[in-house]
Amino acid sequence: MRLYDYAASGNCFKVRLLLGMLDLDCERVPIDIFAGDTLTCEFAMLNPVRETPVLELDSGERITQSNAILWYLAEGTAWLPDTPLGRAQVAQWLSFEQERVMGGLGGPRFRLLTGRATAEEVEPRLATGREALAILGDQLMARDWVVGAAPSIADLSLFAYVSVAPVEVPGAVAAWLDRVRALPGFLDDFVPYPDNARPGAGSSIY
Amino acid sequence: MRLYDYAASGNCFKVRLLLGMLDLDCERVPIDIFAGDTLTCEFAMLNPVRETPVLELDSGERITQSNAILWYLAEGTAWLPDTPLGRAQVAQWLSFEQERVMGGLGGPRFRLLTGRATAEEVEPRLATGREALAILGDQLMARDWVVGAAPSIADLSLFAYVSVAPVEVPGAVAAWLDRVRALPGFLDDFVPYPDNARPGAGSSIY
Repeated sequence: MRLYDYAASGNCFKVRLLLGMLDLDCERVPIDIFAGDTLTCEFAMLNPVRETPVLELDSGERITQSNAILWYLAEGTAWLPDTPLGRAQVAQWLSFEQERVMGGLGGPRFRLLTGRATAEEVEPRLATGREALAILGDQLMARDWVVGAAPSIADLSLFAYVSVAPVEVPGAVAAWLDRVRALPGFLDDFVPYPDNARPGAGSSIY
Repeated sequence: MRLYDYAASGNCFKVRLLLGMLDLDCERVPIDIFAGDTLTCEFAMLNPVRETPVLELDSGERITQSNAILWYLAEGTAWLPDTPLGRAQVAQWLSFEQERVMGGLGGPRFRLLTGRATAEEVEPRLATGREALAILGDQLMARDWVVGAAPSIADLSLFAYVSVAPVEVPGAVAAWLDRVRALPGFLDDFVPYPDNARPGAGSSIY
């Protein structure tokens, strides 16, 4: 199994988190988005959407989209509930993560940290992010994990961009972040954006 | 089972498509987004994200996010593959649908049809939509269905916004749209945006 990933991507970090928790052996192929690694013909063959992460199985089959990779790795493990309702609730929070958390926190954070936008320019998106954190806080008010009684891939998926949110997080969310950090196998190898992620320094992507 | 839905929403149309294909009995509760139906306290209790569709089970449990609802309804049926790789590929295309098809076709279409933006203003997003259609066309070049050898919820999910794309679709995509339309149980009840979806006519949402 081989993971094509970018160390500073929250979407890739999610997958690395689960690989660590499951103690799975997986070769990592570093992809430098800002050096143009996703713009090559070879990468388009790997993933026509030109995004990381990409999981390549030993059979040669490939899975893209971070949450789909999490789903694949989690099937048959404790990281995915065994009831249809539980799995649907995980799927629901994975969609919420991409729509509200990545869009409302991950996106603005990227634009701020790499000098692509000012605080004022990202404010409308950050408002979505703050609302997402409030909704997540309400969900975690009376429970330890996002779905059911045990941690699932919904927690790991949400953890990535929430753990580096560029705004204050509600207390219930902060406590949940600490619970995730205390899970056996947790490893935070989510790195800051490198210098070549600034506009003009690398490729034109983003 | 009860579906809170908005007749002019592609995300709701997806769910109605699958309910029809599965011939499931489900009460429909019409939600008029632009009359403010999602802005009430009652609706926030149903779905704090204030989006349609919402599926309410007879147990009182609720599932939100269109693709999570599709997943729930499809489990154990022919609409979801029975291999982990097949399911992961479906999950991958569902993520692609939300990211590229809804964002690149459904969003611009809404803004154009309701007078929220000009053709010039939606052009950057439409470029994403055209690229998504090209990727979908490549996927369908040598196959009838998006994943595996049979139609799945990936096809139904993608159908909704692709079937009303405000740009030309590749030939392979047009042929696939016709294949979906020919499926037993197919019913196109996706309605145009009503007059109150125009800015100032109804609520401030969108």
